[in-house]
Amino acid sequence: MNNFTFYSPTYFVFGKGTENEAGQYVRRFGGNKVLIHYGGGSVVRSGLLDRVKASLEKENINYVELGGVLPNPRSGLVYTGIDLCKKEGVDFILAVGGGSAIDSAKAIAAGVKYEGDFWDFYEGKSVTEALKVATVLTIAAAGSEGSGDSVITKEDGMLKRGASGEALRPVFSILNPELTQTLPAYQTAAGATDIMAHVFERYFTNTKEVEITDRLCEAVLQTMVKEVPRVIADANNYEARANIMWAGMVAHNNLVGVGRDQDWASHGIEHELSALYDVAHGAGLAVIFPAWMTFVMKQDVNRFAQIAVRLWGCSMNFANPEETAKEGITRLKQFLTSIGMPITFEELGAKEEDIPKMAEKIGLGDNGTMGGFVKLTTKDVEQIYRLAL
Amino acid sequence: MNNFTFYSPTYFVFGKGTENEAGQYVRRFGGNKVLIHYGGGSVVRSGLLDRVKASLEKENINYVELGGVLPNPRSGLVYTGIDLCKKEGVDFILAVGGGSAIDSAKAIAAGVKYEGDFWDFYEGKSVTEALKVATVLTIAAAGSEGSGDSVITKEDGMLKRGASGEALRPVFSILNPELTQTLPAYQTAAGATDIMAHVFERYFTNTKEVEITDRLCEAVLQTMVKEVPRVIADANNYEARANIMWAGMVAHNNLVGVGRDQDWASHGIEHELSALYDVAHGAGLAVIFPAWMTFVMKQDVNRFAQIAVRLWGCSMNFANPEETAKEGITRLKQFLTSIGMPITFEELGAKEEDIPKMAEKIGLGDNGTMGGFVKLTTKDVEQIYRLAL
Repeated sequence: MNNFTFYSPTYFVFGKGTENEAGQYVRRFGGNKVLIHYGGGSVVRSGLLDRVKASLEKENINYVELGGVLPNPRSGLVYTGIDLCKKEGVDFILAVGGGSAIDSAKAIAAGVKYEGDFWDFYEGKSVTEALKVATVLTIAAAGSEGSGDSVITKEDGMLKRGASGEALRPVFSILNPELTQTLPAYQTAAGATDIMAHVFERYFTNTKEVEITDRLCEAVLQTMVKEVPRVIADANNYEARANIMWAGMVAHNNLVGVGRDQDWASHGIEHELSALYDVAHGAGLAVIFPAWMTFVMKQDVNRFAQIAVRLWGCSMNFANPEETAKEGITRLKQFLTSIGMPITFEELGAKEEDIPKMAEKIGLGDNGTMGGFVKLTTKDVEQIYRLAL
Repeated sequence: MNNFTFYSPTYFVFGKGTENEAGQYVRRFGGNKVLIHYGGGSVVRSGLLDRVKASLEKENINYVELGGVLPNPRSGLVYTGIDLCKKEGVDFILAVGGGSAIDSAKAIAAGVKYEGDFWDFYEGKSVTEALKVATVLTIAAAGSEGSGDSVITKEDGMLKRGASGEALRPVFSILNPELTQTLPAYQTAAGATDIMAHVFERYFTNTKEVEITDRLCEAVLQTMVKEVPRVIADANNYEARANIMWAGMVAHNNLVGVGRDQDWASHGIEHELSALYDVAHGAGLAVIFPAWMTFVMKQDVNRFAQIAVRLWGCSMNFANPEETAKEGITRLKQFLTSIGMPITFEELGAKEEDIPKMAEKIGLGDNGTMGGFVKLTTKDVEQIYRLAL
């Protein structure tokens, strides 16, 4: 096991009706002038935004609003938000929505406290200072409600990049599974795939002897395999929604990833898909992950056999572990298909001819590599895209 | 799933050599005048105390010391510590040791900020304010390094009671598994039993549909079942020590317990054993837990069968789930015996004739009950003690 630090200071408020407590938690965590940041559509239509506002008003907390966050959130709105916060003296940002609204809020929070261009953080600069961010979550997916990460797309070139820093961890996050019940099945499934992908990125490691995080990873995955089909079958299954929502946080606050090297190549490979075709990140991951697994499996066949046995209940083929490993990947594909996810370029609407362009855009150049489990070159990435055709 | 809040803001620093970073973390978390609080013996002999002091001195942080914490820590030393902190203007307590040193430090921290008798907190008053506490952990057991709990024994009547409050969560905890390698096998096993007991207290619940916390509980238990025998066989197995140490934190910061009713009767029943005979808490739990399980099993036979299958790999007897449930309890007993734990009063050195006295001392009276899974009366508690004879 590697040395590590783990710090997840977010105060989580989980359950029915908890969005009505937003105001009291903003008060508790010292917010005086709030920016409410959100996308549009359902947050407004459902009355959620009004409930959150009422809760702030009850505590006499002033706020301004900025809606319009798009899926795969854009840098343009971040600049608007930074200007607005500076002009209005905002000291606290409350994101109401999913990963996109939260990631956009984090970018604004970092940008307000920084003299340079906020995009520097998405080019590798660590975030050490930011306005306080809090969330009212409406989709179980990105895990941004408990993480110190943010992903933004720069319109100029549609570059999709990530930033990180402890300062980006939300001070509180409100998770009400009821709010996810109105999501279309496709979005629910894409979110679930994102959650599972966050675990896979951590599960496949060359670090030896990390039983506790192996088992915690499997706990989240086992939960997803049980609960996601129940939600696809019945969108109003509160209990299944609740288990998925909490699993989504656990999958990405890094509890299941400490003490081990992680991979994260698949996320980078997928980002080019969602940047180019503006598809749901989770759907892109459903296409990429089985292909990545197939490509890297020989790095540690027994680890792939382990997840096949422990997650999918495959029988271990002791004479030929590779068969078991492959069976696990097949079962993953079947699972993704069963919940309505695409697993090929064609199903996603991606095009073979774009492969060289996407692989190149990742920016590895002639000698660079990506991925902690297997170091992938640009040529390897091209092959993984082709395995997903 | 129940509504819940989850807040675990402790900064964890995990791995080899990390005790040498104590000073920089005290600085980061705002400590100016520190009380170093510890037991004695090994912390001094091993040179750990000197390394921690050197680390504080490197940061020019002033400190005073108070050693002498006993296992099952006593109220007397808490009063001494409170007086010392007030006299010396201490604003930060650094516990160096196991659960006893940490729990004693928490009691002092709460007492310094309170005008009344600190024991009020151990009679049910919630702790809302305390000096900052941090830890350098030397045994994987109590989970106090990540919890908001403390257990103290009052000499007058040898009353062993617990206090709780968010203010008692350590601001940082340093976990170096190397520090646990010198522990005798018996203490290692007692600590491991305590960790497993913290999960059992949460696992047995009447709350339905808590798959995610069920699975997280099982993840910790599966880790323990794999790693503890390896450490008993080879005390210097760093990797196994590391997995156990992190499992011990996860078992008790309440991540594996959110969203569900919990039990905690066995801890109360055990406290009378360790208070009366001054035995290791974990050893007492090894005696009580199988007896408690046997007594309450019929409340939810399938839940006991589930853990038998998932943790111990028992085959499910679909025609007679109770047989599987019982097999799980038998396997637990065998496991405890295999790691050197007592599972009977006789092996622990407890006496049958003390049973009525212990049961009465819990204080349920004629009509009171304890336990969230099954509500136990004084008579039930007596029966559980007798099942452990």
